[in-house]
Amino acid sequence: MADKNFVKEVADMTVDFPQWYTDVVLKTQLVDYGPIKGTMVIRPYGYAIWENIQKELDARFKKTGHKNAYFPLLIPESLLKKEAEHVEGFAPEVAMVTYAGKEQLSERLVIRPTSETIICDMYSKWIQSYRDLPLKLNQWANVVRWEKTTRPFLRTSEFLWQEGHTVHATREEAVEETLLMLNVYKEFAENVLAIPVLVGQKSEKEKFAGAESTYGMEAMMKDGKSLQAGTSHCFGDKFSRAYDIQFLDKDGSHKYAWQTSWGVSTRLIGALIMAHGDQRGLVLPPKVAPVQVIVLPIASHKAGVNEKAQEIIDQLVSIGIRCEGDFSDQSAGWKFNQWEMKGVPLRLEVGPRDIENGVVTLARRDNFEKITVKIDEIKEKVPALLDTIQKDMLEKARVFRDAHIKKATSVEEMKKYLDEGNFVVTKWCGCRECEDKVKELMQASSRIMPLAQTLDMGVCPICGKPAGTTMIWARAY
Amino acid sequence: MADKNFVKEVADMTVDFPQWYTDVVLKTQLVDYGPIKGTMVIRPYGYAIWENIQKELDARFKKTGHKNAYFPLLIPESLLKKEAEHVEGFAPEVAMVTYAGKEQLSERLVIRPTSETIICDMYSKWIQSYRDLPLKLNQWANVVRWEKTTRPFLRTSEFLWQEGHTVHATREEAVEETLLMLNVYKEFAENVLAIPVLVGQKSEKEKFAGAESTYGMEAMMKDGKSLQAGTSHCFGDKFSRAYDIQFLDKDGSHKYAWQTSWGVSTRLIGALIMAHGDQRGLVLPPKVAPVQVIVLPIASHKAGVNEKAQEIIDQLVSIGIRCEGDFSDQSAGWKFNQWEMKGVPLRLEVGPRDIENGVVTLARRDNFEKITVKIDEIKEKVPALLDTIQKDMLEKARVFRDAHIKKATSVEEMKKYLDEGNFVVTKWCGCRECEDKVKELMQASSRIMPLAQTLDMGVCPICGKPAGTTMIWARAY
Repeated sequence: MADKNFVKEVADMTVDFPQWYTDVVLKTQLVDYGPIKGTMVIRPYGYAIWENIQKELDARFKKTGHKNAYFPLLIPESLLKKEAEHVEGFAPEVAMVTYAGKEQLSERLVIRPTSETIICDMYSKWIQSYRDLPLKLNQWANVVRWEKTTRPFLRTSEFLWQEGHTVHATREEAVEETLLMLNVYKEFAENVLAIPVLVGQKSEKEKFAGAESTYGMEAMMKDGKSLQAGTSHCFGDKFSRAYDIQFLDKDGSHKYAWQTSWGVSTRLIGALIMAHGDQRGLVLPPKVAPVQVIVLPIASHKAGVNEKAQEIIDQLVSIGIRCEGDFSDQSAGWKFNQWEMKGVPLRLEVGPRDIENGVVTLARRDNFEKITVKIDEIKEKVPALLDTIQKDMLEKARVFRDAHIKKATSVEEMKKYLDEGNFVVTKWCGCRECEDKVKELMQASSRIMPLAQTLDMGVCPICGKPAGTTMIWARAY
Repeated sequence: MADKNFVKEVADMTVDFPQWYTDVVLKTQLVDYGPIKGTMVIRPYGYAIWENIQKELDARFKKTGHKNAYFPLLIPESLLKKEAEHVEGFAPEVAMVTYAGKEQLSERLVIRPTSETIICDMYSKWIQSYRDLPLKLNQWANVVRWEKTTRPFLRTSEFLWQEGHTVHATREEAVEETLLMLNVYKEFAENVLAIPVLVGQKSEKEKFAGAESTYGMEAMMKDGKSLQAGTSHCFGDKFSRAYDIQFLDKDGSHKYAWQTSWGVSTRLIGALIMAHGDQRGLVLPPKVAPVQVIVLPIASHKAGVNEKAQEIIDQLVSIGIRCEGDFSDQSAGWKFNQWEMKGVPLRLEVGPRDIENGVVTLARRDNFEKITVKIDEIKEKVPALLDTIQKDMLEKARVFRDAHIKKATSVEEMKKYLDEGNFVVTKWCGCRECEDKVKELMQASSRIMPLAQTLDMGVCPICGKPAGTTMIWARAY
């Protein structure tokens, strides 16, 4: 039977989580592999999720005073090299253009791995006076990083993202902006993606190449690993000194400006998949689901069924619900599995008997609950149910996450908890050596130091030295 | 005085149109030059226009059954070479990636100049049966074409665009799609950009590399030159044969599929500037203007003026008008000129006496008309006025265009009319030689053969042979 074949095609997530992921992304047609190793084609079903993410984030960026702009894809190699740490971080993975048509270029051009360098170059030209500040721009763009090991959405040679780049007159303002955007990301992750995130500061080892400090948000996946879902960097005046961004301040003196950058990418789609997915495939939160309600006519050969189904679709579409019908000649069982695998939040079934009784059956994807609703009440009940699903998914993910954060006071405990699929919280001395040791002993890394820390002292379980900082460790994507 | 300086900074468009264009795009901060010759940075004011264009077009694409997707930026050189005419057309201007990090790549990668090749490669994998058709995708992306002569928006090494790529079971369907999208573009150009366009088929010489036939829309600029504002191509089965896109049809036989592609780009911003601009700078149609109404408080040091201005802004924003205020400490004259140069459709002035009388003054950018409106009526009057401006701008452009299309029956007449800044309509024999001769003698090219042609015979003014086709000629961007 088609049903079983379908379900069988997705690997068991408890047995082989990576294979489950690959099955889900390919079979739900979120994505396909491009002709060059490490590239991905984002198919319509995947791209529609990205469009919903973009729409939600873009509104938040504009509300916080940012404007969009677009900077060139190609960066002269010399420009990339101006900030020493930055070039060191990115040089090994940049794609280089050396020819245009048949002509060799006089200077090699780098395809942007991120745009700090070219944006700073323009900012140094645009910013003259304190009147030009703050300058708060964002760009939606593609970037290329030639990675060795790749997986769709998680790590690909090219990906789509947004990168905000702001300039301020004071360090305080830059710090404020860095944290503001971190919180915009957090609110978005929780309320739109239904993913509870841990936010905090990255260690020196894990920070962005060239930043003074990096803040990140970490999301827990169903295998207990962490996915860095977004970062917000404070550059201090490091880039403004390297790229000569000076302004004439009110006091008549020239000063170097203070900068931030922050970004999220198509990686978020990977986070959605692994934070909510189950044995049957995707489970998408209503706010980003390309299809929020799938209408399935039952016994559609019977008179009036397809018409009623279409009427319901039109009603839901008219109130702004993303609703589609499946009128194909596949079996009902095949359709159930298909749309479950695709993670559509609500399935609406309507058959001859339902029509007689003036009702339809709704089935929730997140918990498989079935609800009978009067046809007259669909326009009130469906939006309310989608809201409930959105909230319940966040809560479910929160409960899962909280159950998988463990405090540890020894290296043995750390390893044990990590092996069991947990995040681990410890006191930490702050040393790079301890991070390297954790990497070596248990293949985990420091994720974030929570923003609001209790200042009690403890002991670093790795080196045994006194430690005041709390660090969250995890195996990570 | 600041006023005069400002106006003086933009060259006289009747004397030096290209310089006027350059002044306008740079001084209104639509765009800036990137660090690499031929590249542009699209600044927030320019990018906001692009966002409005995208929003309007994207809704039209979706309404006509298209979905968005995203294909990789980098294309293996071997893939580009599969369709002979196509590679010949694009090879001279492609940027080539040869290195990633320090490693030389085993195959050179082309940065997409357009995406037919990589999309066809995926389509050949995705399309198996008639059930997979039609497949109607679009992508919003950046493309790179290494052009020798560049100008912001009109011709740049990198630009932003959308490219639709569809696949159909029959030639008829593909032809229908090609014309459908041409008409979507035309309706959009007229109703959103307020630019009346001429649509029709391109000559063999001017068609897209690899297409069976190309249709285009041509817009008249204020200097009488034509700007190709969008194209829609029918590929027939040329690409499907080159890339092996076959499907199992209902009759049980394998068939090559039929394809189209169509695109518009950030060039449209250049069209907006040159179709509507005047001596004072930009004139933007309300539907794409980043700021539709600029509120200027007059004598703003007086009590209550700024408050009333803000109140009005809030009112207009609340009904969806893109409205901003200029509360800077510049002079009123400077502000008038600044916002006129930026092409904001409506200026709203509010001063102490206005407030006393319960009125404000509105000034239209398109015809400089001033209208006094009661403050109570702003929420009705302003949207209505923006609608009127939108319609009047289209009408004005249409009158201008119609006055500058001349019929010619000799080469001398053709040259005379072109020199005077007109499009020229002639009968045409259909020969490439005649097109080359027109290029040589008068630096003009064939633009389009109108779709609805009268079938009367005439004489080709270039070679004197009998001719049934009507051709529109122009100097072009």
